[in-house]
Amino acid sequence: MSYQFEDLKKSCPTEWRDYIEHSFVQQLGDATLATEAFQHYLKQDYLFLIQFARAFALAAYKSPTLADLKQAKEGLEAIVDTELDLHISYCDEWGISEAELAELPEARATLAYTRYVLDTGNRGDLLDLHVALSPCMVGYGEIANWLNSRSTTIRGDRNPYDAWMAMYESDDFQEAMQAEVEWLNERLAEVSPARFEQLTRIFRDATRLEIDFWNMGLNLSD
Amino acid sequence: MSYQFEDLKKSCPTEWRDYIEHSFVQQLGDATLATEAFQHYLKQDYLFLIQFARAFALAAYKSPTLADLKQAKEGLEAIVDTELDLHISYCDEWGISEAELAELPEARATLAYTRYVLDTGNRGDLLDLHVALSPCMVGYGEIANWLNSRSTTIRGDRNPYDAWMAMYESDDFQEAMQAEVEWLNERLAEVSPARFEQLTRIFRDATRLEIDFWNMGLNLSD
Amino acid sequence: MSYQFEDLKKSCPTEWRDYIEHSFVQQLGDATLATEAFQHYLKQDYLFLIQFARAFALAAYKSPTLADLKQAKEGLEAIVDTELDLHISYCDEWGISEAELAELPEARATLAYTRYVLDTGNRGDLLDLHVALSPCMVGYGEIANWLNSRSTTIRGDRNPYDAWMAMYESDDFQEAMQAEVEWLNERLAEVSPARFEQLTRIFRDATRLEIDFWNMGLNLSD
Amino acid sequence: MSYQFEDLKKSCPTEWRDYIEHSFVQQLGDATLATEAFQHYLKQDYLFLIQFARAFALAAYKSPTLADLKQAKEGLEAIVDTELDLHISYCDEWGISEAELAELPEARATLAYTRYVLDTGNRGDLLDLHVALSPCMVGYGEIANWLNSRSTTIRGDRNPYDAWMAMYESDDFQEAMQAEVEWLNERLAEVSPARFEQLTRIFRDATRLEIDFWNMGLNLSD
Repeated sequence: MSYQFEDLKKSCPTEWRDYIEHSFVQQLGDATLATEAFQHYLKQDYLFLIQFARAFALAAYKSPTLADLKQAKEGLEAIVDTELDLHISYCDEWGISEAELAELPEARATLAYTRYVLDTGNRGDLLDLHVALSPCMVGYGEIANWLNSRSTTIRGDRNPYDAWMAMYESDDFQEAMQAEVEWLNERLAEVSPARFEQLTRIFRDATRLEIDFWNMGLNLSD
Repeated sequence: MSYQFEDLKKSCPTEWRDYIEHSFVQQLGDATLATEAFQHYLKQDYLFLIQFARAFALAAYKSPTLADLKQAKEGLEAIVDTELDLHISYCDEWGISEAELAELPEARATLAYTRYVLDTGNRGDLLDLHVALSPCMVGYGEIANWLNSRSTTIRGDRNPYDAWMAMYESDDFQEAMQAEVEWLNERLAEVSPARFEQLTRIFRDATRLEIDFWNMGLNLSD
Repeated sequence: MSYQFEDLKKSCPTEWRDYIEHSFVQQLGDATLATEAFQHYLKQDYLFLIQFARAFALAAYKSPTLADLKQAKEGLEAIVDTELDLHISYCDEWGISEAELAELPEARATLAYTRYVLDTGNRGDLLDLHVALSPCMVGYGEIANWLNSRSTTIRGDRNPYDAWMAMYESDDFQEAMQAEVEWLNERLAEVSPARFEQLTRIFRDATRLEIDFWNMGLNLSD
Repeated sequence: MSYQFEDLKKSCPTEWRDYIEHSFVQQLGDATLATEAFQHYLKQDYLFLIQFARAFALAAYKSPTLADLKQAKEGLEAIVDTELDLHISYCDEWGISEAELAELPEARATLAYTRYVLDTGNRGDLLDLHVALSPCMVGYGEIANWLNSRSTTIRGDRNPYDAWMAMYESDDFQEAMQAEVEWLNERLAEVSPARFEQLTRIFRDATRLEIDFWNMGLNLSD
């Protein structure tokens, strides 16, 4: 038996679809999402990014090889040097100032997913950590692709969320997503059935917590 | 300035009261709580305990002194040797079998609070970890005392939840609670205002996640 | 390919033999070991035990199953509740007071092996941690058996170190050793060649640091 | 009482001087150090750097603020993007190929100091980690300055180790050293006497393990 990332998705097809095709995502594609919901999501996504930077730092610490360490360092850099600033600019376009971002409390859904990832990484090894990160790192690319595959998705000036979709369908993001899938496939190909069973639990829980992150946006929950 | 545990509570009085006097708690005291809600809570509390055992193990690992290590070991033992079995028996009285407990998935509110505690412990030092644990270790004792102070609380055979209250008002639990407060007071007395500010954020977030644990019970959320 | 603990030993036969049949061990068996060397070793072994308690606590934190958590807790208990006290009594027989033990600085060889184990555990998963612990947990039993197999080993009242050998040849210790080997064999049977290669590096480094622990005793190094 | 980094040095003046003015350092300044000793040191220093990268990654993970996270990320970047390559080039000048570096086993003194730093960081908080790193981050700058203050130190073409001294007396390194001292001073100013006592133990042990790193170079020990 040689496992692949697709097998993780197949282990929890309902949760995965509920995440990828979540109402938040659909409304975003249909240009019907409430501005407040998107703004709430954007703000929490900023705090999420900071915790994700910690997750890549943890990955660097846990790396068994120099190649893994360098890869994790690049993930950390991408967030701290580029994505946080992009996020701050994008938030600014939506009327959210950097000062406001700096003072925000983390919503419970943000705490839940990010701390689950971090504890999973500390508890297990680098593969556990990557599996916990994968619903985010791979899922957002799949979401962009799924939105593009729907006839009802509105692109261009008629959809205020067009730039969001453009980011995750970009070559840069899609290549990073593909690289992550390949990294996972290489390691998953070697795991035993018992180990794969453990990893499916992590993948499913992480996906469930991503669903809650969308719920948090829709419900403006703190 | 010499801080005490009471100062942590005063830093987020609304959250603390929302937690101690939560509807779940009130209905439990009034004997009006739905059986299903209590059962759902009980099941998740079992999974919570297992993660709390991990938190005490982490405390033992992080201990700067042998005395701290021994104390953490006792907390770990209390859970693994006593509380888990008590919990299994108590669940059995409520129609929840040990086999069912062994197969349960963790609800998101359980993941959220427990992993927040564990990551906070790994990120910071032993004091950070204890502050994150304190809403549970001290709060449950306060809840029992608060319920006893209310005229509407029903005790004895007329309340199916009487045994629950009895457990947390017991001398054993109240003494453990007091010991925890004293441990915290000793350390808090020495911290700087900047450090105390950090700790208030941890205490408030942990309390918010405890509120969600009650919500999870009431709403039967998974 | 199905690996076993024996394969770890075969991956570094020279280091393993240098550890098991170290001059310190030989002199101890021959009753020629300098009292000061044994006392120095005993003192550091006490500090070593405290760090080993931390390693079992870390194992409990990292446990993927409740069964693993309980096993790690028992290891922690055995050290904190029994072995530390036995060690204190035994040290007392050799003229080393508990007060002296409490004030001892850790020798560099003690720092080296114990912190290597702890970082290896944090960096990897529970198997990495156990492999790093195994030269101690299995090796001491093998040392007792090897000493008993030599014609020059002196047992009984004519050897002041007889009680030391008796401890590690005891049924209790030999059974714990066997249980550890079985735990490792179960997991090693499932690992890939690349993973096994990683584990051999950990096993060899841990064995080298155990050799240094004997050197430290012989050389009275701090 | 307001502590400063200087107070850490004053807590173990003998160890600090033994480290800064070590025979390895003196011989290096006097141009009398054996080529093999320097080469052995250089090789291990490469492996040391990789573990130091892990320590900065751990610092990023543990950071309580975004500013701390960014600072730790810069330390990680400096090592991975610049220092490792500089080290590889410098090793090449001394006849040590990159292929040889990639295959090197870690010497025990390298394992000892680096894993002590990493476990200290995991056990405690960001300040514990920085204190454990400081003998390296500050000490190398002091060593360069001390060498320059000696009349017997030979600079320029007559000393094959001139480039080594030049690196640590450079403005870049001296500024990084100063920044580290300031970071520590800010935090140390706030700690209690009991906490400072803990930190002095970490500082002394880390300094002792640095002394062993020089010994390892001189003795060509593995």
